[in-house]
Amino acid sequence: MNPPNSGNGSPPPGRKPRADGVESRRAILLAAANLATTRGLEALSIGELAEHIGMSKSGLYAHFKSKEELELATIDTAAEIFVADVLGPAAQSPAGLARVWALAEAFLGHLERRVFPGGCFFAGVSAQLAAQPGRARDRVMEMQRRWLGLFAEALGQAVAAGELPRATDVDQLVYEVTAMLVRANFTWIVTWDRAALEQARVGIRHVLERAGGTVRAAGRRTPRTRRRSRS
Amino acid sequence: MNPPNSGNGSPPPGRKPRADGVESRRAILLAAANLATTRGLEALSIGELAEHIGMSKSGLYAHFKSKEELELATIDTAAEIFVADVLGPAAQSPAGLARVWALAEAFLGHLERRVFPGGCFFAGVSAQLAAQPGRARDRVMEMQRRWLGLFAEALGQAVAAGELPRATDVDQLVYEVTAMLVRANFTWIVTWDRAALEQARVGIRHVLERAGGTVRAAGRRTPRTRRRSRS
Repeated sequence: MNPPNSGNGSPPPGRKPRADGVESRRAILLAAANLATTRGLEALSIGELAEHIGMSKSGLYAHFKSKEELELATIDTAAEIFVADVLGPAAQSPAGLARVWALAEAFLGHLERRVFPGGCFFAGVSAQLAAQPGRARDRVMEMQRRWLGLFAEALGQAVAAGELPRATDVDQLVYEVTAMLVRANFTWIVTWDRAALEQARVGIRHVLERAGGTVRAAGRRTPRTRRRSRS
Repeated sequence: MNPPNSGNGSPPPGRKPRADGVESRRAILLAAANLATTRGLEALSIGELAEHIGMSKSGLYAHFKSKEELELATIDTAAEIFVADVLGPAAQSPAGLARVWALAEAFLGHLERRVFPGGCFFAGVSAQLAAQPGRARDRVMEMQRRWLGLFAEALGQAVAAGELPRATDVDQLVYEVTAMLVRANFTWIVTWDRAALEQARVGIRHVLERAGGTVRAAGRRTPRTRRRSRS
């Protein structure tokens, strides 16, 4: 649960020299991922990034041979953070509707804690990469599919367990639940107003209520518990 | 209903020479608005735009003194198109729920006709501008507020007319309806799959159905009529 930018502490004594390079590469990639959420992947030229983190261009070139390599490594770093901060914890929750809520709350918490300064990394860069086919776009789309797939799986479990009616259109429900989350990011990054996150919770509760019968209690309990942590 | 890029025809004979400058400025700004939806406003350097439209940098500088001036004029051009293509036509429709549907369909039609090559101009640039306070961001946010305001007005009319219950939380409903549209743009610009647009229609119907009683008929009729135009 540590913020990813809080560092990994000092390297242990006696570590091999190569570890410095690993630490340094990691620091560069975290800075690059942060920068991408506020300035866009377009801003990730070796030159601009070097200036941003106060490193020489040649120092950066020692780590990344090209802008594409830097971009791909940045996306991988953001993916690791997203998995560790959102997907992983939610996957520990009980299956079914509880997991739908866990996934939603993990995403909203990820925004609220400002893990990245410009909101969801993948929502931010996907609009930019939409018109640029290539490996960077493929990796971003893969993470989106994985995120949507977890919602589909959890909603499918809810149908199987009788928490939602058998005739539920799971794809449509994935669309509607994630619409509330995409919309939350959209407003959050401009206003930083928690109201947008709360509206997403109410919206998801409405979506699940409309879809089935046993949803109400689960849907209401989760947001109330979370609400306490708001200042 | 003409696509905005189809041009305004030849200038009439005997027009003053200055008209050429106006036409040329307009052509530059349309190219800039299109480019911004696929490459981002960041890509709108005078140099890159000049290369993109095959004009000299000095030719472009004759029209725009700075990147900021170019950016603001590009946003104004995109705003004019959005008003003419989406907001204006929807405002002609009957008040209340019919107008909610008209606004939604106008937006989905705007996406489907690919008025801009990278989807909704304002959704695309707002993520980029979120972290960059200034006049460009202010203008983009103003257009967003205007769009959301029209939904709030139409939903308020629906409450006043008894199409929705008196206790309706209009702000929440604006959030949920526009969530479906923001989500549609999010998927559309990557997949170009009309299923995303149809899922938005079903999502909005669900939102309005859940919110009140007399919604069902209006909500179902509109998408069916529109559906015929799909290939």
